This record gives sequence, C-alpha cells and structure tokens, in this order.
Amino acid sequence: MMFQFYYAPGTIALAPHIALIEAGVAFEARRVNFSTGEQRSSAYLELNPKGRVPVLVTERGILTETPAILTFIAQTYPAARLAPLSDPFAFAELQSFNAYLCSTVHVAYAHNLRGNRWADDEAALASMRRRVPRSMMECFEVIERQLFKGPWAMGNQFTIADPYLFAITRWLESVGIEVEQYPKVSAHFVQMTAREAVKDVIAMHS
Amino acid sequence: MMFQFYYAPGTIALAPHIALIEAGVAFEARRVNFSTGEQRSSAYLELNPKGRVPVLVTERGILTETPAILTFIAQTYPAARLAPLSDPFAFAELQSFNAYLCSTVHVAYAHNLRGNRWADDEAALASMRRRVPRSMMECFEVIERQLFKGPWAMGNQFTIADPYLFAITRWLESVGIEVEQYPKVSAHFVQMTAREAVKDVIAMHS
Repeated sequence: MMFQFYYAPGTIALAPHIALIEAGVAFEARRVNFSTGEQRSSAYLELNPKGRVPVLVTERGILTETPAILTFIAQTYPAARLAPLSDPFAFAELQSFNAYLCSTVHVAYAHNLRGNRWADDEAALASMRRRVPRSMMECFEVIERQLFKGPWAMGNQFTIADPYLFAITRWLESVGIEVEQYPKVSAHFVQMTAREAVKDVIAMHS
Repeated sequence: MMFQFYYAPGTIALAPHIALIEAGVAFEARRVNFSTGEQRSSAYLELNPKGRVPVLVTERGILTETPAILTFIAQTYPAARLAPLSDPFAFAELQSFNAYLCSTVHVAYAHNLRGNRWADDEAALASMRRRVPRSMMECFEVIERQLFKGPWAMGNQFTIADPYLFAITRWLESVGIEVEQYPKVSAHFVQMTAREAVKDVIAMHS
C-alpha cells in the first residue's frame, strides 16, 4: 500500500511533507480544506479523531504528531540519512531539537490564531496574540545561540530537524519578526528555500 | 562518567527519573530548588540555558526535553526493553504518544501556573487557569478512548510512555479532575504506583 499523507497549507504538515520527498518516498498527498472546516468533518475525524494535520496513513495504521512522523520517515528510509540512527546521543540531540520545536516554539506561535485552545474570552485571546512576537523571538534566540549547529540544524548532515525548523521559520514574518536578525537561522532559511524538494512542496502548499 | 540527572519535585522530571531506575542505570540525582529560583541561577543556567528540568548530563554533553531523554534511555539500555527499538512503526506510535503528552497535554496543564509564558496580564492568566480543567479532560478523553492500548500505554510491554503518562496523570487532582472517570488511565495509575521504582522516585520527589 502506498502511503497517504494529509496536509493543509499554512500548517506544520509542510515539514514532514518535505521530509517524505527528501527521502524519496512514494506517497499520495491529500490536501485538507481548513477554510471549509474539513478537518472537523465526520469523514476526516474518522480518519484522525484529533482533527489535525499532518497524518501519515500506513498499511499498519495512521501516524500523527510531526516529530513522530519525521522520525518514522528517517527510520523507514535509512538510505536517505535523515537522522543519526546508529548514534543514540546524536539521535537524542535531534529528538531534543524537534521536541523543543514541537512543545515550545510551535506552541508559542499557536497562541496567535489558536489561542482558543487555552482560553475562551476575547480579551485573553488578544492578550495572547500580543505576546506571540516576544515569545517567538525568545525561542529563536535559543535556537540561534544554543541549539543550531550549522550549516544544518544538527551539523553537517541534513536531517529531519531541517524541514521542521524551516516550516516554523516561515511563520516569523506573519507575526512581524524579521528572520535576518538571526544570521544562522536566516542562512538556513535561504539554503532550504533553494532545495528542489522544498520548492515543490511550497508550491503544493500555496 | 556516571550520568547526572537534574530534577525538581512537581515537574515532569518525574518521568525520566522513573525510566532511569526502571532501566537500571547508574546515575547521580541532583535536586534543583525551584522554591528559591535555583533554575534561574547563573550556575544552573550555565548547565542548562533553558532554565528547566529535566537535564541528563552525559559524557558527550547535556540532554534536555523529556521525550528525547526518555528515548535516549530506551536506546542506550536496550536490555530494559523500554521501547520497540526494532519496529519503526511501533516506535513511531510510541513517539506519537509521547509527542502528544509533550506538546498538547503538558502544555494544557502548564496554563495553570505557567501562563506567564504566553500572556502578561493577570486577567488573561486567570482566564487560562479557568480553562485548564476542561482542556485536561479533553486530553484525557483522547488518551482513554484513542491512544491508550492497555494494560500499559502502548500495549503489553511497559515502555517509556508509561512513566510519562503517569507523571502527567498525577497532576489531574491539582486541577480538580478525578482520575477514576478514566477507567483505563485509572487502572494504569494504580499499576504504576505499585512499582518499586515508582515508589522510590516519588519519595525522592516529595
């Protein structure tokens, strides 16, 4: 069975979508229409009760959660060398980087338009939105100064951390942050944008 | 070099602390005094600039982020069988479970006392706190109905998902949620509490 990959433009699904193409995986891409609320339709919730993207459908069942899908791609296609699979410490550093993106950076950004996950009243949502640029800048300072090794996120080897960082870096502009203030992240963004797989996926997510 | 493990009571460090003991790892536990703000001291920030726990200090450097430390323990001590290391799909399901705990459940709970990560004014923080019980109940319904396999989180084998789930389940009472309304999670909580490693670590975290 060919993998099916569910994505929506503007979401973090961009990251595993790039990783699938970088790994040379044969898969069928299925776009979910968030503008009509398709992610909350009964058909979609039957596929993924969480009502989110990305979803990777495999012959053994579905996988959700971006870090898990990325790791699955790296482990299932070892020839693509998308993770240091035989070095538990280096692998843990990669997992740590991705966990920071997932639990801290993505979450900080989600308070911009998805604040209703954590509060109900409009005043609180507005307060959250005001804070997002500062939170994101704090996160990207941590990435720039502490976590990013260069030239790729985890050093000399392109890994699953790279599309993940790239997908979140793309969001900075929408909250008024100029990526140029982070020289390493900015150079990474340029490098990523030049890759064929990235160009192809961005076109699909437009 | 013996591992050093930094933890603080009441934090998610409980989960990797249990995993270290379950795996039979020789390590030195170091308690960080959050009540005096030790996590923001220059000495601690030199160790971990994120100013958080847990931290695992290895001879190759430090590791942060709970899912990454858990995976590192499982991979470094394969004889403990704390993860399905030779089955990429089962491993991805485990990673997905842990990513959900990390990015959704832990984050939902953090809006109770750590809301200042995402908003500044007191009214917004109060609004976030009010929402936490409902958010946590939604998360635990997802766990109970969709994710938990039983008798352990990922099925017949005890894995790193179990101390992680247990550590978060322990927080329910503090936001007024009775674990008994989730029969599978409740039975898991009882099973976990009976384990010697868990008893030992809870005593250290008291």
